[in-house]
Amino acid sequence: MMEGLDRIRAADIALKAFAALRDEDSVQQLARQLKGPLAGQWVAVKDIFDTADLPTGYGSPIYEGHQPATDAAMVGIIRQAGGLVIGKAVSTEFAYLHPAATLNPAAPGCTPGGSSAGSAAAVAAGLVPLAIGSQTGGSIVRPASYCGVVGFKPTFGMLPTAGMKSFSWSLDTVGLFARSVGEVGRFAQAVSGRRIQAGRQAAPTSWSVGIPRSYPWGALSDSAAQALDLATKRLREAGARVVECELPAWAGDAFHAHDAIQGWEAARSLAREIDTDLDRLSPLLRDYLLQARQIGDPDYAAAQAVAAGARLACAPWLPGIDVLLTPSAPDEPPGGYASTGTSTFNRAWTLLGTPCLNVPGATGVNGLPMGLQVIAPPGEDSRCLAAGLMLESLLRP
Amino acid sequence: MMEGLDRIRAADIALKAFAALRDEDSVQQLARQLKGPLAGQWVAVKDIFDTADLPTGYGSPIYEGHQPATDAAMVGIIRQAGGLVIGKAVSTEFAYLHPAATLNPAAPGCTPGGSSAGSAAAVAAGLVPLAIGSQTGGSIVRPASYCGVVGFKPTFGMLPTAGMKSFSWSLDTVGLFARSVGEVGRFAQAVSGRRIQAGRQAAPTSWSVGIPRSYPWGALSDSAAQALDLATKRLREAGARVVECELPAWAGDAFHAHDAIQGWEAARSLAREIDTDLDRLSPLLRDYLLQARQIGDPDYAAAQAVAAGARLACAPWLPGIDVLLTPSAPDEPPGGYASTGTSTFNRAWTLLGTPCLNVPGATGVNGLPMGLQVIAPPGEDSRCLAAGLMLESLLRP
Repeated sequence: MMEGLDRIRAADIALKAFAALRDEDSVQQLARQLKGPLAGQWVAVKDIFDTADLPTGYGSPIYEGHQPATDAAMVGIIRQAGGLVIGKAVSTEFAYLHPAATLNPAAPGCTPGGSSAGSAAAVAAGLVPLAIGSQTGGSIVRPASYCGVVGFKPTFGMLPTAGMKSFSWSLDTVGLFARSVGEVGRFAQAVSGRRIQAGRQAAPTSWSVGIPRSYPWGALSDSAAQALDLATKRLREAGARVVECELPAWAGDAFHAHDAIQGWEAARSLAREIDTDLDRLSPLLRDYLLQARQIGDPDYAAAQAVAAGARLACAPWLPGIDVLLTPSAPDEPPGGYASTGTSTFNRAWTLLGTPCLNVPGATGVNGLPMGLQVIAPPGEDSRCLAAGLMLESLLRP
Repeated sequence: MMEGLDRIRAADIALKAFAALRDEDSVQQLARQLKGPLAGQWVAVKDIFDTADLPTGYGSPIYEGHQPATDAAMVGIIRQAGGLVIGKAVSTEFAYLHPAATLNPAAPGCTPGGSSAGSAAAVAAGLVPLAIGSQTGGSIVRPASYCGVVGFKPTFGMLPTAGMKSFSWSLDTVGLFARSVGEVGRFAQAVSGRRIQAGRQAAPTSWSVGIPRSYPWGALSDSAAQALDLATKRLREAGARVVECELPAWAGDAFHAHDAIQGWEAARSLAREIDTDLDRLSPLLRDYLLQARQIGDPDYAAAQAVAAGARLACAPWLPGIDVLLTPSAPDEPPGGYASTGTSTFNRAWTLLGTPCLNVPGATGVNGLPMGLQVIAPPGEDSRCLAAGLMLESLLRP
């Protein structure tokens, strides 16, 4: 077990996926007490969740070395399920876009994405089998795509955000990382207490997969098109029904409503930080929050009304389609570390609260990871995971 | 302004509604900066919400004197809306049932109810015009009923629980207290950013009010029946349609599902406290949590499935009925301080996520406050407040 800790320490000098790591003594002590479905498995927890025995910096110099007095609800859940929180995974600043120092083990020289950068990278590097993160725009599915791991954002509200530093409470969603769909499904079942694990997968011939003809948030990149083509080909060869479809109006509505909701709420979640520590925010976040403060109640109210309508309209889903399949991100991971990429392919689904799963296995035009996103209706987490299990098996080399 | 602080200090020696109070200097400094719809109004915040400049004890000796590093999202919202958080209102231990020391200004010698005891009592005593609290079972509507003030629990998810100590994340709901329905409506609009304030009230003749013939959670007490009779009489005299109705199956389903959901989640929200501070929990909470730890995943999963079904089934509401009217609590406030009463008349609605409003004005058989609960479908907060405004005007002496 201690070799595992040594391995993390050695690898993390370069990788920078961990903001804090448990020491040997506490690992040994905790390991003795753990019982439950996670059976002592190590879990990295994004440094946006409070932990009473590990410092929690929210990715910001304002909170460097901050030691919360209590645990986030997810930490209590992991503990009760027998998992061992081995350390805190690096988050970008308050889970927004300013890049962290974490590297991408699957694409040297490229961003790991964000905001759950450390969680995705730690799993991609094989340092931990499981990690938790959060998504307000695309902070689970995008880094999973860039790092070539499985990322699962369950239905909104299924996993608790209590004890997590809020950015936008109508959007903040807890998500999970693992190396395979099977593992992420078992993890999801253990921490949700629900029966959502994908069991024996249904035959490809029983699936109807919808592929949007176009997107309200932009065109497909060459890499995204290449990944979708591969998936379409494999699905059809295996006998699945692949249907081109139009995204209903609710998808575009959700995408556009995301902006004002996130801004209005972030300006309030971080009201104290804006008022008392403005100069310790990155310029990127500072400018965003100062603009967000200008969003008036009427714009927020209008966006919330659109969101409520979109969620209602989305519930019956698309007729004859089990799951949607889209790129997980606009492209392969961008080179360099100046940006963590964008969440255009994720925002609408975060707002709608649908389960979303990044399935790795495809690549873009440069041979870098280019993930595919499986999307199911809200509440149909089990369907999302089962479809992902099938797709994963078809993409395996 | 400082007389207000002196008045709170003097009254609170006996009342014990405040766990912490801001000092003069910080009041003066903050008051200069406040702009927005709340325009410098003082707000008491239940001591279950984190505040970066006031200690936050969660009603437990484990956290006595605890100083959080940051503000709960609701605190940022109040600040941004121009309200002044004047102090922390006493909560029962972790917002569960163990009584706090707070008295009831409206019923001497009786419990103020819980868990938002200090919030309800501070408003009832006229020490603050506005207060926030939280409800997981009946912790807004019940103390409002007992203390004779207005308590409003909006639709689940409308106000953020981020930065609030969690008890049960599927149920925890932020709620508001004020002295009148109009005030609580303006408060709700200011903090939610939405257009939910009840405007000019619709004429009583335009309302159809449903009164359940019976309840899956027990019979009416004499006091509850007396209050309902008064309301029915006044509504009919004013020309409203009052309809006896059967509560659909979803109401009983929701009531029964509440138990396993709250227990399974509380055992995890408070996992650390159980493991490391068991002897500093009250016997009431300790016994509850140790039993709650025995609730298995299958029971939780089954209760969540029932809850999801009940929420779906409840959305179309009862045909031909605008709002339901029920007692806010089983009875007048119980005498003495050994119990804070029970949440039987509130639990189902908390789980269903419906807006609920306690309208004071009626009394029970001993002449003590006996509130009436207006219940509207999820998302219809505006309708709930408008119906409450009408009822309030009819109950005014």
